[in-house]
Parts: sequence; C-alpha cells; structure tokens
Amino acid sequence: MSLIKEKSLQYNLHSWSAQKGIDPKVITKADGIYFWDEEGNRYYDMSSQLVNSNLGHGNKAIVQAIKEQAEKIPFISPAFAVDVRSDAAEAVVKLSGMKNAKVFFTNAGAESNENAIKMAKQYTGRWKIFSMYRCYHGSSAGAGMLTGEPRHFANEPGPAGFIKYDGPYAYRAPKQVVFTDEDDAADFYLELLENQVLYEGPERIAAIFLETVVGSNGVLIPPQKWMKGVRDLCTKYGIVMVCDEVMAGWYRTGKAFAFQHYGIEPDLVTFAKGVTCGYVPIGGVLVSEKIQKYFNDHQMMCGLTYNAHPMGCAAAVAAIKEYERLHIEENVEKQGNVLRGILDELSQKHPCVGEIRQIGLFSAMEIVKDEKGTPVVSFNCDPDGMMPKIIGMLMKEGFFTYSHENMIVVAPPLIIAEEELREAMAILDRVLDSVDGMI
Amino acid sequence: MSLIKEKSLQYNLHSWSAQKGIDPKVITKADGIYFWDEEGNRYYDMSSQLVNSNLGHGNKAIVQAIKEQAEKIPFISPAFAVDVRSDAAEAVVKLSGMKNAKVFFTNAGAESNENAIKMAKQYTGRWKIFSMYRCYHGSSAGAGMLTGEPRHFANEPGPAGFIKYDGPYAYRAPKQVVFTDEDDAADFYLELLENQVLYEGPERIAAIFLETVVGSNGVLIPPQKWMKGVRDLCTKYGIVMVCDEVMAGWYRTGKAFAFQHYGIEPDLVTFAKGVTCGYVPIGGVLVSEKIQKYFNDHQMMCGLTYNAHPMGCAAAVAAIKEYERLHIEENVEKQGNVLRGILDELSQKHPCVGEIRQIGLFSAMEIVKDEKGTPVVSFNCDPDGMMPKIIGMLMKEGFFTYSHENMIVVAPPLIIAEEELREAMAILDRVLDSVDGMI
Repeated sequence: MSLIKEKSLQYNLHSWSAQKGIDPKVITKADGIYFWDEEGNRYYDMSSQLVNSNLGHGNKAIVQAIKEQAEKIPFISPAFAVDVRSDAAEAVVKLSGMKNAKVFFTNAGAESNENAIKMAKQYTGRWKIFSMYRCYHGSSAGAGMLTGEPRHFANEPGPAGFIKYDGPYAYRAPKQVVFTDEDDAADFYLELLENQVLYEGPERIAAIFLETVVGSNGVLIPPQKWMKGVRDLCTKYGIVMVCDEVMAGWYRTGKAFAFQHYGIEPDLVTFAKGVTCGYVPIGGVLVSEKIQKYFNDHQMMCGLTYNAHPMGCAAAVAAIKEYERLHIEENVEKQGNVLRGILDELSQKHPCVGEIRQIGLFSAMEIVKDEKGTPVVSFNCDPDGMMPKIIGMLMKEGFFTYSHENMIVVAPPLIIAEEELREAMAILDRVLDSVDGMI
Repeated sequence: MSLIKEKSLQYNLHSWSAQKGIDPKVITKADGIYFWDEEGNRYYDMSSQLVNSNLGHGNKAIVQAIKEQAEKIPFISPAFAVDVRSDAAEAVVKLSGMKNAKVFFTNAGAESNENAIKMAKQYTGRWKIFSMYRCYHGSSAGAGMLTGEPRHFANEPGPAGFIKYDGPYAYRAPKQVVFTDEDDAADFYLELLENQVLYEGPERIAAIFLETVVGSNGVLIPPQKWMKGVRDLCTKYGIVMVCDEVMAGWYRTGKAFAFQHYGIEPDLVTFAKGVTCGYVPIGGVLVSEKIQKYFNDHQMMCGLTYNAHPMGCAAAVAAIKEYERLHIEENVEKQGNVLRGILDELSQKHPCVGEIRQIGLFSAMEIVKDEKGTPVVSFNCDPDGMMPKIIGMLMKEGFFTYSHENMIVVAPPLIIAEEELREAMAILDRVLDSVDGMI
C-alpha cells in the first residue's frame, strides 16, 4: 500500500462510510475529462466528480486566476469591498437575468440553502419550510432537514416546521394513477402540493424549496406546467420560491441556470459547485429584487467568516468567462443530443435499463429487474451491494461515476467532445451487458 | 465613489447588516500585519481580520503552496486519497497530540460544529446537546442553535434538544455571588452545570460544547479547575466533550490548541480559521480515538462535496509548517506578555476600561460606564451606536478591530513584533482618552 493511502486510512475520516474496509484510490493527476490513479490507470470522469467539475480538470484560466488572487489578497474580512467580490456578484447576477438581484456568497451548497432558509423566514416572518421528497440540499442541520432522502436521518430530531411534499416523478407514481400527458401529470402533483399548502396554512409557510432539476436522486426533470404552477402558487400565497441549482446550475442542463428553461423567476436561487467547478469552494444565494430590497431597512441575519471569499470569487469570475469563451452552452446542446441518442439505444438494448432521463449533459438511468420497472434495489436498502458492484465494474473499465438508489448518474464535464462521449458510453454499454445477466 | 464600491453596493449582500447606509471600505493591498484601502490609508490589523489571519497577510509559503496545488489537482472527489489530504490530516493530528485521532475536514467553523453535533449523536445514540451562553459556534441551523448569543435568533425555531448553560464569567456574576478565588468560581459554575445535566437526564445528553476560550463574546478564559471538571463530568456520564477551537486554536492563545493549556483531552475538537489563516477556506473536526474507532463499524453519516478540499489541505500543510518555522509559539508568549503589560496600563489609566482578559495574543477589554463595571451598552442593545462609534474612531486612526456587546477585541497577527504592537496600542490609548470623555 502506498504511503498516501496508508496515511489516508490512518488520519482521514471518509464521508458517508463505515471506515473499515474502505479502499480509496490514490489520484495523482487530472486533466480535461480524465483523471489518473497512482498506478497510471486513466478514468473518464463521467460524473464531473460530484457534478461540479463542469469545465473539467486543469482549466488554465481558472488556475491562473487563483494564482493571481493568492498573490494579491487571498483573504480579507467580508466587511470590506474587494474588486473580485464585486465582479463575481455582478457576473452571477447578469448571468441569471434576474433584474436588480443581489448575491450573498457562502462556502458551498449546504450553506447556501441554510442562508436561503433564514432569508425566507426573515422576509416573510413565517416559519414553515416546504421541500421535496427525493431532493438533496446538504447535510447540515437546516439543509439536511430540507433533504428528502435518507441522508437527513442523522440530522434528526431537526428543527420544527420542515414539511416534505411529493414532486413530479411519473415513472414511480402508484399504478392507480393514470396520466394522459405531461400537463396532466403536472396538474396531479400541483393539486397534491396546493392541498398540502392549505392543510399546513399558507400564511405560515415561508418557502417552497425544490431542486430545479433533482440531481443526486436521479435527474428528475419537472414538467413545464408544474414549475409554472409552483411559481403561481408561491405568488398567490406570498411564499418564497427557492430553486436549488447547486447541481442543475452552471450550464449542466444547457442553460446557465435550469430555471431559465421554464420562463419563470424564482425568489431565491442557491448555487455552488459549477460556479468555480470546485477549484476553490464557494457557493451563494441569488436574491431577487423584492427580497434584497427588504434587507435595505431590515438587518439581514446572515453571516460567515468566509462570505465572498476572494479566492472563490476570483475563481468564479474566471469560470464564468470560460463558460462563455468555450461556448459551453452550444456544446451542451450538441453533446446532450448525442447523449440522448446513446441513452435511447442503451434503453432499447438492455433489459436492465428502465427509464432514462436526460437534459443537457445531466442524465440518469434506472436499473430495473423487469419490464414493470421494479428497481433492482429497494429504497434505502442494498444489502448485497448491487449498485456499488456495478459502479466498481464501470470504474475497473475506466468509467467513473456514482449511483444513488437504483440509479446511475451520467453527467460528464461540459467540455466533452463527441468522440470522447461515445468512447466512454461504449464502456457503459459493455458493463450493462453484464448487468443484464445479473438481474 | 469608486466602481468597486459601487458594484459592491449594487450586487453584494453584506453580512449581519441592513444594507442601506453601509459603506464598505475598498481594500487593495495587504501585507504582514497591515492592509491598505484604495485611498492609500494603512491599517494595523489588530483583530487578524476575524481572528483568522494568524500569520498575517501575504505569507509567501502558503501562497506558493496554493499556486502549486492549483496547478496540480485543485479538486478531486472526497472518495479519493490525495497526497495533501493525507498530509494535512496527519499534520493536524500530530499537532493536537491526540493519540490515534483522525480528522474529518469541512469548509469552515460552522460546518465543523454541524458535523461534531452529528458525530456526537451517532456515537452516543443520544440527542440533547449542551452549549454555553455567550458562545458563538456559527450561524447555520445546527451551529446556530449551539450559539448562545443573539446571532442565533434567526435560526429559531431550531432543532429540539439544544440546551444552554452558564459558563465561567466571574466579572458579570450577580453581586450576591462571592468567589474566594478562581477554584471557588470553578466549583460554582461546575455545580450549576452538573445540576443542569441531572435535570436534563445525563443518559439523554450527547455532547457538551464549549469554546475552549470564548472568542467573539469577549475572550472569556475558563479556570483550570472548571475545564478539568467539565472533562470529568463528561467522562462520568458518557457525554462527548467538544472543544470549539475555531478561534482559540492555531497558537492564538500560545499553544497550538487552547485545550493544551488545561492538561485535558477533548473527545472532539472543531477548528477552522487559523488552520489556513483563511487563505483558502477549510475547517474540520479532530476525532479522538474512541469515537473514530466507533465509525470503523458504523456508517459515519457525514459528508460534503468539499470534504478535505485539496486546495484547503495544501494551504493547511503550508501554514502548519510556517507556524513552526516562524517560531510562532515563542513569539506569542513574548508579545503576549508585552500586550498584557500594555493592557494593564490602559486599565489603570482609563476609567472607561473595565475588566481586561488576555491569553497569548487573544484579548478583550470591557468598556464600562463606572467603577462598578456597568457595561457602556446593555446586552444586545446599542441604539446610539456607541460601540461602532468607538470602532470607527480606531479605524480612522489606522487601528482595525471589531467590538462585541461592550467589548473591544485585540487579537493581532501572531507574527507581530514588539514595536508594531506598541505603536498600534498607542493608538488605542489615544482613542480611549476620548472614550473616557464619552461615558
């Protein structure tokens, strides 16, 4: 065992794991859509790490910006203005198209959601918070209670007033529910949501959170009508609409922000990951005009030492320029179509592939047991490690991604070329052959 | 108004403020213990920004490490081992002297406390969490509920089971309480705490949190006997003892970690700030042998995208080496003594100065109205902006620090030389002359 791995096992606690038996690969190099382990094996980064390395590894412009900022002012108190702080906020606001919005920067996604909760409560004077089952918003006490899947269990008992609703997921609707089309599905889930809002008392509800496109839990893409309906519901009852774009933002779905597909404007947008592609941690909350203006005369009770950290801001400014210079929006459209075609083929070919869902370079496939779509593992229960086994088979062939429940995520860096995408997906195709034999 | 400031007001939301009327200075340069605004004014950084720039500004070794890591691997998923990840964890554990400890890295202090809460709950299977009034542990939903001062109000209603206790603060004890000496004070506060533990049910209490030395709320330094008593209490009842060293750690008090003054070993230690001096955000939890071993066979339900971020780890490794190379421990002892002498003189000379408290280069003075020590502003209430006025007068003379309640913090970078310290403190002396006339 190499010294790096030995020390890692001796000194580091590893996320979401029992520590015994973990065997972290040692990574020594990363470039473009690839990274390499210490034995020289190369991997296609088909999940952009944790759906954050949108511009891939080794982007020279971001690296240069980091180096220059480190030389200049790596840190100064949030009480002060610094050029990159102002520039980063301006760039994010302009990209969002939200008129007269402002930005409050944090360290990452969870903290952005934590602050969005606080802003919504302060702005409305209300205290209940709605969020969706099968969403992930982070794992700190507030963000964790937004999270509607098992990773929030460790946060319990959580704050009172966190209420979960069912968002659109037609593929797993009970069989008694029959949808004539997408609009019909939207109507169904909107009716459920409005009923729940009424049961809980709209005048007590500060915010409705959603992931604009649900990420970790399998790229659930809401129908147009549903998103517009949630916007209307929030407007009708004076509820703050919060779109979590930590994963879905930064061109992942083909637009700078996923809400831009829906012709709506959220009241708050939380972001992180792709804003710097993870080169330096930063996140933030985009705050719409009406809410930011509320804080003109009311103290905003939010703050952190590393608010608008100059290193993160410098990396963000550089990354935003790179998205434009590299015509990422165009590439996502083009490669997204290629990906769609490949996924359709895989779905036709492999009995183990259930529904596939894709928007831009953001996709997931459900691994199923049968034609009825029975998930290969049941919810929060994979005693035989079926899904880790599949991920391990992919990894062995040089295809890196991760799974969640019975779903495999495919979300490569947005710089990927068609040839690279086809090469990588051919690996997935081969591995799915074996999975067909396992179900 | 410069464009940077104009944009800052147009696009950035500023921490803990009503946005109307704020006037952030634009900072353009920082070096050693100084920084400069865009008009060329130089400031002594007498609070090390937010008590994090322990090695001052422009440290070449940390900057170099950041630049090298940016070129190499700025980010890779926490699932992997990377040299700097292993090295940073090893360096932190070795510095702590905690045998067979491990580290779980986060982005900053609040998140470290969030994760310490979760670890303590998982390890003990209990759910109540004790923390101290007048402590600050962050402002996310969990860390905020630990916080025992008004900045947690925005987190309410918070999770159930967060219970506050009174820690040692002899200077503000009710006049009916008479202490014969420090041990006597320790006994008093320990009795209060043990009673409260019994009232709440020790078998339900997961953790007792404390700031080893209370930071933001005025450098409250617990007596030796009290700290040992809390350790014994935790051992007696199987409660996890958590020392928050986000501010007090990293040689601020003269030792690498403040708990090392007390001859005790906490079960968890949270840290951030000085570990990189803020050059890149990182924080973490030091996890003692018995707790880390528990997670060998039990899934640790903690995780975040930027766990053990390579850039933060690289900066941490470099900073830890710099603390040693620059003989920071020795300098803190030496300049701490100088500071103590100056503070004693100021206390003698100025009627407005009440109790002064100092350990290493960590100190605060209470600004009072009279010989009885009546605070110049009452708790959470400064309608005339008395304290901001004093901070503004200091700033105008080139002395940067911040206040909290009626207290002024003095906590310069640990690299400060005696001459610089005396020059800066002469400014404070002059401003206190004016304050004497204001009370």
